Amino acid sequence: MQALFQEKLQVLNVGLSSFAESVARAGGTVLQVEWAPPAQGHQTVCRELAQLVNLPAIEAANRKAFDAYLTAQPILRGIGVAGKVLPKMAERMILHGGPPIAWENMCGPMQGAIIGAILYEGWAKDIPGACALASGGEILFEPCHHHAAVGPMAGVISPSMPVWMVVDAAHGNQAFSNFNEGSGRVLRFGANSPDVIDRLKWIGQVLGPTLRAGVETLGGLDLKTLMAQALHMGDEVHNRNVAASSLFLKRLIPALLRTTTPSADIAAVVDFIAGNDHFFLNLSMTACKAMLDAAHGVPGSSMVTAMARNGVEFGIRVSGAGDQWFTTRAPVVDGLFFPGYTTADAAPDLGDSAITETAGVGGFAMAASPAIVKFVGGTPQDAIDNTTAMTHITLGRNGAFTLPSMNFAGSPAGIDVRKVVDTGIQPIINTGIAHRKAGVGQIGAGITRAPLACFTQAVSALASAMRSSQ
Amino acid sequence: MQALFQEKLQVLNVGLSSFAESVARAGGTVLQVEWAPPAQGHQTVCRELAQLVNLPAIEAANRKAFDAYLTAQPILRGIGVAGKVLPKMAERMILHGGPPIAWENMCGPMQGAIIGAILYEGWAKDIPGACALASGGEILFEPCHHHAAVGPMAGVISPSMPVWMVVDAAHGNQAFSNFNEGSGRVLRFGANSPDVIDRLKWIGQVLGPTLRAGVETLGGLDLKTLMAQALHMGDEVHNRNVAASSLFLKRLIPALLRTTTPSADIAAVVDFIAGNDHFFLNLSMTACKAMLDAAHGVPGSSMVTAMARNGVEFGIRVSGAGDQWFTTRAPVVDGLFFPGYTTADAAPDLGDSAITETAGVGGFAMAASPAIVKFVGGTPQDAIDNTTAMTHITLGRNGAFTLPSMNFAGSPAGIDVRKVVDTGIQPIINTGIAHRKAGVGQIGAGITRAPLACFTQAVSALASAMRSSQ
Repeated sequence: MQALFQEKLQVLNVGLSSFAESVARAGGTVLQVEWAPPAQGHQTVCRELAQLVNLPAIEAANRKAFDAYLTAQPILRGIGVAGKVLPKMAERMILHGGPPIAWENMCGPMQGAIIGAILYEGWAKDIPGACALASGGEILFEPCHHHAAVGPMAGVISPSMPVWMVVDAAHGNQAFSNFNEGSGRVLRFGANSPDVIDRLKWIGQVLGPTLRAGVETLGGLDLKTLMAQALHMGDEVHNRNVAASSLFLKRLIPALLRTTTPSADIAAVVDFIAGNDHFFLNLSMTACKAMLDAAHGVPGSSMVTAMARNGVEFGIRVSGAGDQWFTTRAPVVDGLFFPGYTTADAAPDLGDSAITETAGVGGFAMAASPAIVKFVGGTPQDAIDNTTAMTHITLGRNGAFTLPSMNFAGSPAGIDVRKVVDTGIQPIINTGIAHRKAGVGQIGAGITRAPLACFTQAVSALASAMRSSQ
Repeated sequence: MQALFQEKLQVLNVGLSSFAESVARAGGTVLQVEWAPPAQGHQTVCRELAQLVNLPAIEAANRKAFDAYLTAQPILRGIGVAGKVLPKMAERMILHGGPPIAWENMCGPMQGAIIGAILYEGWAKDIPGACALASGGEILFEPCHHHAAVGPMAGVISPSMPVWMVVDAAHGNQAFSNFNEGSGRVLRFGANSPDVIDRLKWIGQVLGPTLRAGVETLGGLDLKTLMAQALHMGDEVHNRNVAASSLFLKRLIPALLRTTTPSADIAAVVDFIAGNDHFFLNLSMTACKAMLDAAHGVPGSSMVTAMARNGVEFGIRVSGAGDQWFTTRAPVVDGLFFPGYTTADAAPDLGDSAITETAGVGGFAMAASPAIVKFVGGTPQDAIDNTTAMTHITLGRNGAFTLPSMNFAGSPAGIDVRKVVDTGIQPIINTGIAHRKAGVGQIGAGITRAPLACFTQAVSALASAMRSSQ
C-alpha cells in the first residue's frame, strides 16, 4: 500500500466522472471510462433484463427476425387509394402518426391535419363543422401502423387519399404511405387552409394517377437498391433525401414519357417532385415499414419493429410482443431552429418517420451523410460517432446499406430492447420539428433520442411473457 | 557525447528512410519525417526556383489569377455547332485532347476517334479513305485547349458536332465541350464502327437540338452551384458524376417538357442521360475550363491553368507562360482494371479531363467522394489523405466547393508550379484508363500523378522570363 502511493499514480475511473475530475484537478493522470449500471440501476428491471440475456430461444428468435429484415426486398408496386387498398380501413376512418391517441388528447398539428382531411373528404364544409365531427365520435382514429402504413409528422391518411403501395417481394407483406406534399403550409404540419386542400386534391387527381401510370410502365422499382445508392450520395434517407429523390425521378421519367399522360400533367408532376428534395421520404419510410413488418411477430424476439410518435407520446413495438405499444411522453427536440423560432414553439416529437432509424437508416446511417449536420446540427465527426454508438444496441449490420466513410461497413440495424436497457444508449433519430400550433409548419430539425422508458417497459413485458411460458 | 550515448536514444530521421529502418532494426526508437530536397536535388532547377520564391510580383500575380478563378461564374448558356461557335475553328479541322501532336505520333484510340470523326463528317466513305485523308495532311489537327474547348479521352471534336456552350458570367470568357456518349464502344475511346457513327448522328440530330431547346427554356444553368451540391452528394465530378448527372436531369426535364419537342424525342433523350452516370462529366470539364481560362494570362503567375494528356505526352499550361505547353511522356495509369485487362493493355494517360483537378475538383476533391475508391482503388481514408496532400501545392481553397468529410473545408485549388517542384508532391488525377488499341474502350480506372518534369520546365521558363525582364 505504501509502495503504491510512492509511485506515480495512473488512475482508471469507471462510471461517475466527478471522481476522475477530482484526480485530474489534483494533477493526477486519469482515464475516464464511460459506464452506467444497467437499466439505470433500477433493480427490478435489472432482474428482468437478466432473465432475457443469453437465452438461446431469444437469440434464435432475434436471428430469425433480423434475417427476415435483412432479406426483405421492398419493391414499389403501384399507387392505390387508401380506402380501397389499406387493410381494415373503414369508411369513416382517419389514420394518424405514432401510437394510438384519442382526438381530445392530440397535439395541435395532428388535430389541424385531421380537420384538413375531413374537409378534403367533404365530410364537413368548414372548420367548425369538421371539429364537431372529429370530436363527436363519428370518425374512427387509428394509427397508420395498425394498417401496414406510415406517415411523416401528423401522418394523416384518409380514405380517398392516394397511397404508395410497396410489397416485400421476399415475404409477401405490403406497406403503404401517403404522398409528400413539399414544405411550408402542408397538411402533415397541421395546415388546412384552402390552398392546402387544393394541393391535396391535385395530388389525388393528377399526381397519384400520373405516378400510377409511370410505376405501372416501370413494372416496379427496387427501393432497397435505390436507398443504398442514395447512402453513397450523402443521403441518410430520413432528413436528407435529395439524392434519393433525384434518383427516383431519373428512373421514373423515361417511364412516365412512355405513358399516355398529357405532357402538361407530366410537366406539373416533374416540377412538383423536382422542387421537393424530401419527396422520397415517404417512399423510404414505406420501404422501411415493409422490411420491419417482415421481422415482426417472431415470438420471443426482442427486436424493435417500430418507433413512432404522435406529438404527445413516443411508442415502440417489438417483434416478440405482438401488437402491443410501449409508450411514454414524447420528448421535445432540441435542434437547429429556423430564424425566429425556439424550443418553446416546438411540438413534441411527431410522426412515423422514425421507422427509418428502426430500419438502420436515418440517424443510424448518419455516417453516410456528413452534409446532414448542416440541417440537424453537429459536425461530420458527430455523424460518424452517432452511427458507431448505434452498433452497441443493434443485432447486426445491414450489408445492403454500406457507409463509405466507415470503410463501407454496413449500417447498424435491428435495435435490441435488451441492449438499449443494458447500455442506456438511446436510439438516435434525425427529425424535423413541427410548430406546436396547427399549420405553422416546420420550424427546425435536429437529433432526438428515443426515451428509455419505452424499452424498459418492453423488457418487462418480454420477461413477464417468458416467466408465464415457463 | 558520452552522456548522449548513455541515455536512451530517440531518433528523428529526415529524408532517406533506410537510415530510420536501420535504427528500428537495432531496436531504437525512430520517427521518420518524409522529406526530399527541392527539385529532387537538381541544382539548376533549385537556383531557378529560388529566383521565383517570395517575389512580391509573383505573389500578386498569383493572387490575381487565383481570384479570377475563385470569382468565375460558369453558366451553361446553350448548345451550338462546333464549326460555328468555336473560336478559330477551320472548315477541315479536328480538335483532340491534350497538348499538340501530329497524326503519325498519335496513340491508337486518338487515331481511331479521328477516323470516326472523318466518317461522321462524311469526308471519307470508309476507314482506309479516312486514314489516307488523315495522314495526307489535308486535315488540321489542333488541341481542344487552343479553341477554348476540352474533351475527355481522345477529346475529338469535328466541325458539325454539337457542343456545350458555357460562359463565365463574371469575366465574359466562353468554354466548350462535346457530349458524353456513354460507355462501351464510343468515339472517345477510339471506336468508329457504324453503331458509333450512328450514335454521333443521333447526338447531332436529336440530343443536341433537344437539349438546346431545354437549356433555352431554362435560360441558363449555374454549373458551379450544381457541382458544389454534387460534392455534398459523394461526387468528385471527374470520375464520379452520378449525383451531378441526376441533378442536371432534374433541373432540365421540367424545362424540356415546356418546349415543343416531340415527347418521343424527350423520352429518348431522358433515357440516354438517365442511363449514363458520367453524362455530366463534359459539363463539369467545361465549367472547369471556363473557371481556369479566367485565371489564364496573368503575367508572372505560376498558377497552372491546364493539365491535359494526348495518350503520348502529358502537358500543362501556366497562367503567366501564355500559350506555351510544358510536356513530357504521359505515364501509364496503374489502377483497378476491369476483369481480363492489365497494365499491358493500357494506353498512356489520355484526355483533357484533368482540367477538373486543375480546377480543384476531381482527385483534389476526393475527400468529398469516399465511394469513388470503389472505382479508382484505395480506401476512404486515402481519399481524405489525397485531398490533404494537395493543400501543400495549391494557392488556396475554393470556398464554393466544400468537403463535408473535412468539416466543410474548401477544396484545395490553384496548383502552383513552384510548390510542386519545391515539395516534389505531384498533382493527383482520378482518371479512366483506355485500351491502347482503338475502339476497345475503357478497361479500368485509377489514380495517376502529373509528371514532375512538366512543372520543372515551367519553373525554368518562368525564371528565364523573370531574368529577361530584369
